[in-house]
Amino acid sequence: MKPVFDDLYSDRASGMRASEIRELLKLTQRPDIISFAGGLPNPLAFPLGIIKELTQKVLDRYGEKALQYGTTEGLTSLREAFAENYNAHDIPCTPDEITIVGGSQQGLDLLSKIFLNPGDEVVVGDPTYLGGLAAFRAFQARFVAVPLDNDGMRVDLLEERLEKMRREGRKPKMVYVIPTFQNPTGTTLPTDRRKRLIDLVHEYDTVLVEDNPYGRLRYEGEPLKPIKYYDDPDDPRVIYLGTLSKTLVPGFRIATVVAPPEITRKLVIAKQSTDLCSTTFTQYIAAEYISGGYLDAHMRKIKTLYGGKRNIMLKAMDEFMPDGVEWTRPEGGMFLWTTLPEGCNTVEMFPKAVENKVAYVVGKAFYAYEGGERSMRINFSYPTDEQIMVGIERLAKVIEEEIKDKKAG
Amino acid sequence: MKPVFDDLYSDRASGMRASEIRELLKLTQRPDIISFAGGLPNPLAFPLGIIKELTQKVLDRYGEKALQYGTTEGLTSLREAFAENYNAHDIPCTPDEITIVGGSQQGLDLLSKIFLNPGDEVVVGDPTYLGGLAAFRAFQARFVAVPLDNDGMRVDLLEERLEKMRREGRKPKMVYVIPTFQNPTGTTLPTDRRKRLIDLVHEYDTVLVEDNPYGRLRYEGEPLKPIKYYDDPDDPRVIYLGTLSKTLVPGFRIATVVAPPEITRKLVIAKQSTDLCSTTFTQYIAAEYISGGYLDAHMRKIKTLYGGKRNIMLKAMDEFMPDGVEWTRPEGGMFLWTTLPEGCNTVEMFPKAVENKVAYVVGKAFYAYEGGERSMRINFSYPTDEQIMVGIERLAKVIEEEIKDKKAG
Repeated sequence: MKPVFDDLYSDRASGMRASEIRELLKLTQRPDIISFAGGLPNPLAFPLGIIKELTQKVLDRYGEKALQYGTTEGLTSLREAFAENYNAHDIPCTPDEITIVGGSQQGLDLLSKIFLNPGDEVVVGDPTYLGGLAAFRAFQARFVAVPLDNDGMRVDLLEERLEKMRREGRKPKMVYVIPTFQNPTGTTLPTDRRKRLIDLVHEYDTVLVEDNPYGRLRYEGEPLKPIKYYDDPDDPRVIYLGTLSKTLVPGFRIATVVAPPEITRKLVIAKQSTDLCSTTFTQYIAAEYISGGYLDAHMRKIKTLYGGKRNIMLKAMDEFMPDGVEWTRPEGGMFLWTTLPEGCNTVEMFPKAVENKVAYVVGKAFYAYEGGERSMRINFSYPTDEQIMVGIERLAKVIEEEIKDKKAG
Repeated sequence: MKPVFDDLYSDRASGMRASEIRELLKLTQRPDIISFAGGLPNPLAFPLGIIKELTQKVLDRYGEKALQYGTTEGLTSLREAFAENYNAHDIPCTPDEITIVGGSQQGLDLLSKIFLNPGDEVVVGDPTYLGGLAAFRAFQARFVAVPLDNDGMRVDLLEERLEKMRREGRKPKMVYVIPTFQNPTGTTLPTDRRKRLIDLVHEYDTVLVEDNPYGRLRYEGEPLKPIKYYDDPDDPRVIYLGTLSKTLVPGFRIATVVAPPEITRKLVIAKQSTDLCSTTFTQYIAAEYISGGYLDAHMRKIKTLYGGKRNIMLKAMDEFMPDGVEWTRPEGGMFLWTTLPEGCNTVEMFPKAVENKVAYVVGKAFYAYEGGERSMRINFSYPTDEQIMVGIERLAKVIEEEIKDKKAG
């Protein structure tokens, strides 16, 4: 059927098409394919027994209140529980600075809503989380894409860009970073870069969006303090996104935006017209979970599970990958970033991978404009240990063929 | 503290301020005030026992699946359950035409996202749902506000406006109506107007957003078919919003957008960047609830409860209200719309009402630009029967004083 509503859509929607990436990912849903393409937490990491218990407790204790509309900013007891937990983890904040949102993705949507006019510029890592790019694109942003190295965003290059922009009378509306176990690369920004980054944000008078879904998923090494910790309390510039999707369950859709009071007020008004409030029922369960001390205890279990899977994947990579292939060795998170030799192309190679019953996300999906032709993101949190071994062996064979073909060609 | 981020906000956010209405409503939260201002369903109408049972069942039967990320369009079994229920209630649709959203408010947000550029025009009732106005305003819409009479939107006046717009080369992006037990007026559009409305939408080549949160809450009279029923299946133009907030519980945040396939595809892409997916856990519970046949059975209980409250409020209005005051007598829904004699002003009167421990929503909140100075919305679903009697007596006294003052002045 030919489209009939084309003259009614907004400019932002005219560009909304099912992406090439989504079409590729559809291919990976066949049951015989071992997919490293997802970004899902492992269901073995869900504390089902505790959730059953707390769900009954919430219905018994709070009854109808847990089923009614809630306030737009979120349940007070949940915001208090988050504040206490965050303060214990070097994220200084008060409950009033916390807005409960339906996943960090909604945080990115609301921030885009209050900050972005069409054509406004957002600083992003090159590569970065594709859902972040999608949220900003939906508000017609342009990107200032700053390359990464093995230590995350090149803060020196960011400074050059900001200086150039200042000379040209431009200013980014926000700087978006995932400082710890970055998606897609798994890289972590060292402390000196964190400090320099927040200094730059002050110097160039913008705000920093610190997206930290994976920070608690550390399997080795010492925890780093979030950038929010180094922010100036008298002139706060960090908007911190935290979520329960990777540390409890994603299906509750509970995350937080921690922001200076002035921004929080705008966020709440924007959220009011967006969805009135987040799911009350799961907010009550989450509040019991965090205030009951379950979250920190549960992290030990998750870290053992995912840390083991990371080790298995790294071992399989060492064993099977042909010469010339490079990958990150992240101390935490859910992803490895793998780069093939010059001349290879992970989009062109994708059908061959699917044919050989293994899948990944093509690197180019994570780039604001272009890049990542030789790269791919592979996930280790979701597949079974055996799938990781078998899948990496399959993937290594496909890559070996690709390298041979390119040399022959 | 003076605002520090003013040069960073988007144009749409610069206008986002805590509204006068919200400030007024804050006054009504004192426990000694009988508030008719809310729009909340009554917690006595929540099927707590059944929800407890189904929640356990979902965790036992689906376990981790009910806690994982879900698809953006929503749980297949829930969309199938809705489709079956909708088809039995004269809302023809297939599961593929249904998108699950986190409340109808999110439906309005997503529709604004895909249809509205700044300055685009939306047809609304004058008055209409204030959350609808807020959603459209957040995307910088302008309004074509069409007056209502006791039978809802004046479709004859709409036609004049559309004709005038056509002559001027303008076209509304959508027509937004709440045809049954409208918020705030409680009015219902008769069948002939429904048919004329969908004809006009075809004739003037736009889309109709039919928001129907209250349609099932009918306490007397015969049900009318939704506008969607009269849509042309070969050229569908109705986008139908239905919700569980008033028929099950609001705290699950589950609603639907039923739209032609082309629009559904855009909606799903827009929702992907907005929040990835709605709450999986409550989608599973809702699917069990609807497919288990509980919804239709439960409606009888709600109708008895709310119908009784409506009767009590109408009786109290008849008994206490002074001459010259007029109000609607809706056959369903949750609200009466009350209009005071010439010269009265419900905003000015508001502090006196609060002083006398009774509250309402000022009429002007529901108007796109201006109007409603003499009107107010009062809710009968939430207060107890006794609060309705006592509160209406209080309100009548305040109004009596106001009328006297105006005559004296």
